[in-house]
Amino acid sequence: MKKKDQNYIKKENKGLVLELIRTLGPVSRAKIARVTNMSPTTVSRIVSSLIELNFVEETDQMTSGVGRKANLLAVKASSILSIGIELDEKLTRVGFIDFLGNIVCLEEYHRDSGGSPALVIAQLKKYIQELIEKHHIQTDKIKGVCVGLPGLINADNGHVDLSVQMQWRQVEFAKQLKDVLGYDVIIDNELKLKAYAEGIFGKGKKSKKMAMIGFGSGVGSSLIVDGDIYRGHSNYAGEIGHTVVDSNGILCSCGNFGCLQTYIAEPFLLEEASKKGNVRSLQDLIATAKSNENWAINIIERAITYAAITINNVVCVNNPDMVVLTGSLIEQSNYMRERIFNKCTVQIWEPLKDSFTLETSSLGSQGVILGAGMKIQKEFIKQLNFEEVLLK
Amino acid sequence: MKKKDQNYIKKENKGLVLELIRTLGPVSRAKIARVTNMSPTTVSRIVSSLIELNFVEETDQMTSGVGRKANLLAVKASSILSIGIELDEKLTRVGFIDFLGNIVCLEEYHRDSGGSPALVIAQLKKYIQELIEKHHIQTDKIKGVCVGLPGLINADNGHVDLSVQMQWRQVEFAKQLKDVLGYDVIIDNELKLKAYAEGIFGKGKKSKKMAMIGFGSGVGSSLIVDGDIYRGHSNYAGEIGHTVVDSNGILCSCGNFGCLQTYIAEPFLLEEASKKGNVRSLQDLIATAKSNENWAINIIERAITYAAITINNVVCVNNPDMVVLTGSLIEQSNYMRERIFNKCTVQIWEPLKDSFTLETSSLGSQGVILGAGMKIQKEFIKQLNFEEVLLK
Repeated sequence: MKKKDQNYIKKENKGLVLELIRTLGPVSRAKIARVTNMSPTTVSRIVSSLIELNFVEETDQMTSGVGRKANLLAVKASSILSIGIELDEKLTRVGFIDFLGNIVCLEEYHRDSGGSPALVIAQLKKYIQELIEKHHIQTDKIKGVCVGLPGLINADNGHVDLSVQMQWRQVEFAKQLKDVLGYDVIIDNELKLKAYAEGIFGKGKKSKKMAMIGFGSGVGSSLIVDGDIYRGHSNYAGEIGHTVVDSNGILCSCGNFGCLQTYIAEPFLLEEASKKGNVRSLQDLIATAKSNENWAINIIERAITYAAITINNVVCVNNPDMVVLTGSLIEQSNYMRERIFNKCTVQIWEPLKDSFTLETSSLGSQGVILGAGMKIQKEFIKQLNFEEVLLK
Repeated sequence: MKKKDQNYIKKENKGLVLELIRTLGPVSRAKIARVTNMSPTTVSRIVSSLIELNFVEETDQMTSGVGRKANLLAVKASSILSIGIELDEKLTRVGFIDFLGNIVCLEEYHRDSGGSPALVIAQLKKYIQELIEKHHIQTDKIKGVCVGLPGLINADNGHVDLSVQMQWRQVEFAKQLKDVLGYDVIIDNELKLKAYAEGIFGKGKKSKKMAMIGFGSGVGSSLIVDGDIYRGHSNYAGEIGHTVVDSNGILCSCGNFGCLQTYIAEPFLLEEASKKGNVRSLQDLIATAKSNENWAINIIERAITYAAITINNVVCVNNPDMVVLTGSLIEQSNYMRERIFNKCTVQIWEPLKDSFTLETSSLGSQGVILGAGMKIQKEFIKQLNFEEVLLK
């Protein structure tokens, strides 16, 4: 119920039309007019300007009714590029995404944990330059960068408030990265971006209230409601790693007993395992369990129970129509995934058992990159409206 | 982005204008036009019709700018009434609410647990008739009834899917009550209605993302986002009583170990207490703890710890800017409330400690009645639009 003056409406409509062509395309001008309740004249005027800007093109013709032909519109996939970046404790991924969400290129790099923001920024600059060179990328098409990373991320001001995996606290990351790269930079929580992508391109396309749960170097959840990320007050929603699931459990790094992450996040599983064996990775631990070592089986079985408890708890609080599982525990191991799915049949509160479908992410390791790439494109579309006003 | 034809817009605008006058009143026609971006002529036309229908009246005049006087509009508090009803395991409340949310009358009745829907409906009919008589209520002003009750309530079709407190499962309650009363009836989860009222009239007025947590005959949470109830897929969001908080805890009635409700819901506290003493109510239990009985102190201290864990867990998942506590554990006992507030200082995950304010419900035992009364009025406003179309 915000006051909207004439200029404001024009601006908003331009972004709306571009967003609609991107989402619904190939689509006719008439359909855009119907969907938006705008006059055909206004729609045509806006479309012309979008074609002139080279973001939209006319594609196939369709026959509507008694033989009239209408030109269909679609965004020009190659007209812009965005860079999506994923940072985690031990890896970096960098990808280029076109205007339709196609991945132009995507590389994964190992990183040593504990690097400073300055070091990470230097690495990112290097990786981006290498990719531009290797894939002959036209740099004037790059409209911005979005970085997804785990932890408490302030998406509004671009600060990393706290990322245990990155070992960063209160880092002005977006500004520092922008200063070095020269592109617009936004940052966000990685699981929120992954869920956002899953909602656009993956399993979540069929969902109106999708919860994503990530089991990996940490544990987190995110909630997509009608296509939008539910962020909470300070973008911290879904930080379930520190929900207490056993008040008599072990002491967590945060100072509380029995936080969920201590039962399921990869580093904690490996720390437990280190008391008994020389286990360096989750794959090692699972292999040891498969070879019938009791202690490894115990750790794995407990993790599976807590994964099912996590799904139950998220379902009770959020009441989603779909839960999508992701993260290394799920994506790197059929063994774990199958056991977690099985455990859910006895762990989910009975009245809610049929209220949701349980899925595995279809985007896997590309999810964060895709979500990040799409997110900065959305910002670019807003920016475009703003620029147009400045020209007036 | 739904298609909106001319009639649809007119309908929606009429409801919008009435809702705005109710929320913002006293308010000028000019302000309504500004806020809605509608033409002054359209606003005047809609307002005239609302005045004719007797829902809106002109009140004081205000001086705007250089001495011009504008008539201000407000809804006529006495023009309609709604009935709000709260059902819980051992009590029934019935109240009449006017168009501004004033409570015209409110009575509380004891009920024996386990009554059938037919019995409860007969009681409600009797209570309503008694109140109408006692307070000389003009019955043609009554525009509908909303019932709030604990459990899994389908607000769309009016079915009580499951209410452990009422001992009902799959009851077509709204239809059955409507058949007996003759008024329009809707039903909803009681804590969602209480939170809705708190958002309109109580502490939540200052919040954009308010979580309410109820500790009473059960335990539940609800989330108000920008004035709207977050319902989830099937209106079951916030059913935290069956989130697992100790996988080695006691067996819950649902078949899982260590559900939250087993540590904190009143019946479970009293069941534990019954092993040691003759304790009939929460007040008894607290009095016994105050008299330094170790076993009573143990039960109470554990409940306090789990209350703080509940608040922590809800804050981690929902990231609200405000948490409002309610329910018998909070409202009937300063002793419990103070200890729970204190416990939070060590139990809330440190990075989220300053992300929200912790409050106690300001509406107390009137909350559900107020929320229910306001909810059915909102439905009535929609209905009004619909009737107007039928007349055309």
